[in-house]
Amino acid sequence: MSGHLAVVGLGPGDARWLTPEADAALARAEALYGYAGYLDRIPSRPGQARHPSDNHEEAARAAASLHAAAAGAEVAIVTGGDPGVFAIAAAVCAEIEAGPESFRQLEVTITPGISAMLAVAARAGAPLANDFCAISLSDNLKPWELVERRLKAAAGAGFVIALYNPASRARPWQLGRALDVLRQSLPAETPVVFGRAVGRPDESVAVRTLATAEPAGADMATLVIVGSPETRVIARPDGPPLVYTPRAAHSVDP
Amino acid sequence: MSGHLAVVGLGPGDARWLTPEADAALARAEALYGYAGYLDRIPSRPGQARHPSDNHEEAARAAASLHAAAAGAEVAIVTGGDPGVFAIAAAVCAEIEAGPESFRQLEVTITPGISAMLAVAARAGAPLANDFCAISLSDNLKPWELVERRLKAAAGAGFVIALYNPASRARPWQLGRALDVLRQSLPAETPVVFGRAVGRPDESVAVRTLATAEPAGADMATLVIVGSPETRVIARPDGPPLVYTPRAAHSVDP
Repeated sequence: MSGHLAVVGLGPGDARWLTPEADAALARAEALYGYAGYLDRIPSRPGQARHPSDNHEEAARAAASLHAAAAGAEVAIVTGGDPGVFAIAAAVCAEIEAGPESFRQLEVTITPGISAMLAVAARAGAPLANDFCAISLSDNLKPWELVERRLKAAAGAGFVIALYNPASRARPWQLGRALDVLRQSLPAETPVVFGRAVGRPDESVAVRTLATAEPAGADMATLVIVGSPETRVIARPDGPPLVYTPRAAHSVDP
Repeated sequence: MSGHLAVVGLGPGDARWLTPEADAALARAEALYGYAGYLDRIPSRPGQARHPSDNHEEAARAAASLHAAAAGAEVAIVTGGDPGVFAIAAAVCAEIEAGPESFRQLEVTITPGISAMLAVAARAGAPLANDFCAISLSDNLKPWELVERRLKAAAGAGFVIALYNPASRARPWQLGRALDVLRQSLPAETPVVFGRAVGRPDESVAVRTLATAEPAGADMATLVIVGSPETRVIARPDGPPLVYTPRAAHSVDP
């Protein structure tokens, strides 16, 4: 007997960003696994078991969900945003690779979600409309030198840059250092968008420049988008500015 | 009197990827603008006008939708995937910047959608789980040398690379050339995912390597993901392989 594991992306905070596919996967599950903060966003359903865990226990959580599914249960493991962008789907894959054969025999379904950069970009305008990259500033899992190298490569080639995990209590200096690295090659007036808790009641979006961006404007709930030299800001009389990167790009001097 | 413009992302083909927010925006609209192929995916509603246009008329379509909204209508302009990723939201912003003051006074709401790379990644496993970039291979709007420069920068810094617009009748050689550029710096066994028409009845997903990837495997409906040197493939006895990039990364030699 073999069950099924659904790896479900909830999107950012707003329930109106939960896809019907993800909603159906949650409704079908007999057991839910996930970081407690994400499970709290899901309405409780009768007969559905919940297994909340701490934010830092990804591998153990992924393994527990796989064991439950391999034992025959209909299981969902959930994450905010998209499960494949700096999130739980990679931990599930790693456990499948390292685990027993029953894990590789299991049916696994991954349901995509609105990733934070798409939600923040939508609130700001269209900053990601030309070539862009996404870099996590967490150096738990990779050396900081690699982060800097990627920042330099991305800025040098004219990518717009979405910064995931820019700051936390355990990650106090990384965003400031990243902005300093980017200031070495990007113009001071490059637009920088700070999107915090987008889709939640305490949402805020701030548009700065590379010169005026303050690392203190970011925390665990923030996603930062640093424009390319071609990113533009349109002032509007009755609302926030629009930030967008034109589809047409010109050659950037190497 | 001023109306409202909703810029709506439909996600890839499957209606179960349309968010409730996008669905509500479509229901509220008095007039729908979009490429005919996208409008065909939206159920018709009584009293709702439709203004289909050709795929290559982005600026004119964006301007028409803005004029209708500025005249007082509740308007939606739609796109597949996410409106901010190589799509219509940038054209709307460009028309707002270049157009009359009434465009800048208008209320504009952008609703994010599941972008093709997230859908293809979910089908394949978790290839985008570490730092990644998205590059459009369309050279209508930027010089091909810039595309090559970005490909080299991304591969050299260890990014996973999602390739949008890899091929079309008007774009026959670009994907082959891009793969050749990547072969110069990435290992031959680097996994390459071809996701075609994901979420539609004719969906197909193929996993190749850089050595075996055939440009002929891509068309207008395809998104290609080229792994990093750390991307892995897990064979499974009863299903397609899982492709994932571990969260942990090691320094890549410069």
